[in-house]
Amino acid sequence: MLLSYPPQEGTGLGALSPVVYDRTMVGPVQYRRKVRFWDVDAYGHVFNVRYLVYWDDVLTDGFAAAGVSFLAADNGGYEFVVAHLECDYLGEATLGDELVTTLTVQELGRTSIVFGMETLNETTGEVVARGHEVYVVIDADSRRPTPIPPEIRSAFSGLP
Amino acid sequence: MLLSYPPQEGTGLGALSPVVYDRTMVGPVQYRRKVRFWDVDAYGHVFNVRYLVYWDDVLTDGFAAAGVSFLAADNGGYEFVVAHLECDYLGEATLGDELVTTLTVQELGRTSIVFGMETLNETTGEVVARGHEVYVVIDADSRRPTPIPPEIRSAFSGLP
Amino acid sequence: MLLSYPPQEGTGLGALSPVVYDRTMVGPVQYRRKVRFWDVDAYGHVFNVRYLVYWDDVLTDGFAAAGVSFLAADNGGYEFVVAHLECDYLGEATLGDELVTTLTVQELGRTSIVFGMETLNETTGEVVARGHEVYVVIDADSRRPTPIPPEIRSAFSGLP
Amino acid sequence: MLLSYPPQEGTGLGALSPVVYDRTMVGPVQYRRKVRFWDVDAYGHVFNVRYLVYWDDVLTDGFAAAGVSFLAADNGGYEFVVAHLECDYLGEATLGDELVTTLTVQELGRTSIVFGMETLNETTGEVVARGHEVYVVIDADSRRPTPIPPEIRSAFSGLP
Repeated sequence: MLLSYPPQEGTGLGALSPVVYDRTMVGPVQYRRKVRFWDVDAYGHVFNVRYLVYWDDVLTDGFAAAGVSFLAADNGGYEFVVAHLECDYLGEATLGDELVTTLTVQELGRTSIVFGMETLNETTGEVVARGHEVYVVIDADSRRPTPIPPEIRSAFSGLP
Repeated sequence: MLLSYPPQEGTGLGALSPVVYDRTMVGPVQYRRKVRFWDVDAYGHVFNVRYLVYWDDVLTDGFAAAGVSFLAADNGGYEFVVAHLECDYLGEATLGDELVTTLTVQELGRTSIVFGMETLNETTGEVVARGHEVYVVIDADSRRPTPIPPEIRSAFSGLP
Repeated sequence: MLLSYPPQEGTGLGALSPVVYDRTMVGPVQYRRKVRFWDVDAYGHVFNVRYLVYWDDVLTDGFAAAGVSFLAADNGGYEFVVAHLECDYLGEATLGDELVTTLTVQELGRTSIVFGMETLNETTGEVVARGHEVYVVIDADSRRPTPIPPEIRSAFSGLP
Repeated sequence: MLLSYPPQEGTGLGALSPVVYDRTMVGPVQYRRKVRFWDVDAYGHVFNVRYLVYWDDVLTDGFAAAGVSFLAADNGGYEFVVAHLECDYLGEATLGDELVTTLTVQELGRTSIVFGMETLNETTGEVVARGHEVYVVIDADSRRPTPIPPEIRSAFSGLP
């Protein structure tokens, strides 16, 4: 049940896997969402956790753009799990605002990928959320981190 | 529309507000959730963003424990907005697992509060998600950060 | 706290408000959503409740198309609350499928509006969810049903 | 991809499967949820679709109470899919209200189960949402409705 990719506290990504490429920065992939009634919380602005769902949505699109399936049955036996996520909230968004979330590949490590995330409120012109997510590639059976296979590495190197 | 509490990139919480108390660490408040069908994603484990909703749920309980309303109309005109969130994912949880999320107050700054978050999978005995959220107290009208008023500071000092 | 628009059990919409127009059927408004990782549940298909969020999303768009604000502060003091919702699930959708949800105005009553909902899986060519939602217009202060004011009635008559 | 359990429009459950037991009404199973910040929408009350997630949550608990796994791998090859859902919204709930959702088995058909649902706002003493969900038992491989096997029928007959 337990994964064996614990980021050591305080050591950051380096502990997970040495970085092979220095900020490859390919991309971007973009996901657009107009703020609907349901996105908004009791304060009248987009609920903070909703942005992280937008980030997951753009990841779905990024994987599609890279031609990589999330599903072990379709990709040779790998799953992609989040090891670390962080977000700076820099502004607000309300009903009807147009949000554009941009995904980039910030780092391709031995077993991990750092996806950069930025959500722009196009209506106000302000970035409202910015951060990154560290994904670890695991073997779907053993559920342990595994070196990113060449075809998946190659797919994300060229993203999009 | 735009908030004026941008954490300067790379400067961290210090830029937001000098820390007055060094790790007051009062608490904890706990929120319990058994994993239901809906919590689980296509990988068969709890979806990463769901943990952050549990964290928001324990915040609701923490505010209740501290006797502080989220709503400006009930608390003298303040709102509490997230400026920064980060989470290390250390394990997995599946259908039926018992999760206990613990909230602590890690730091009480001039205008901000750092809430520590930890989600334990009681069924496996493993911590599955750990991190913190930086909340900034804003004036609900001006939407700018404002010093935490004494009664709110006092309430969170003694939490729970 | 309690609303005073209880649909009498077994009596249906007629008990709420006599229907003035017989199936005006204006519209449609459409909302498009490609199925992302997060939409999918442990069965590997779109979680049944997600469709009802798509329905709420298309309602946001329908109100925008009609030029009617959800917010009492912006629309003369009205709120729109669901009194009844029903859905037939007719098929499935999985990761990457293109879903199109269509909103129509089925009935405009004295105090209520029946919105027709249909979600088509464009990828498979099948309708996957179909139903309707009965909204009641309430006075935001008294929280009691109130006759739909002419300008709102007119807006939805001409939708989109 | 397409399921073969389309409820014929206007014919209701009877078209799905003849009802064997007349309102067996065993149960109940209860799910308790205090309203948190995230449950509440821009109107300041619980978002209508949230109730249907509570209903799904109580279903998870009902299956656990009956000793029936949702997962084909664990139950002999069956899945349980919603064919119809309906809900009457009878009142409101706000931050801090205690909600209790009660699940009953209303009907056990040949291939379907009708679960009765009722959400009580314990804080106000009012029922706020009431309805039912029709589940169809399908063969996980063929994805076609299949007669409920005796051990599953028996489990739900005695629920809880």
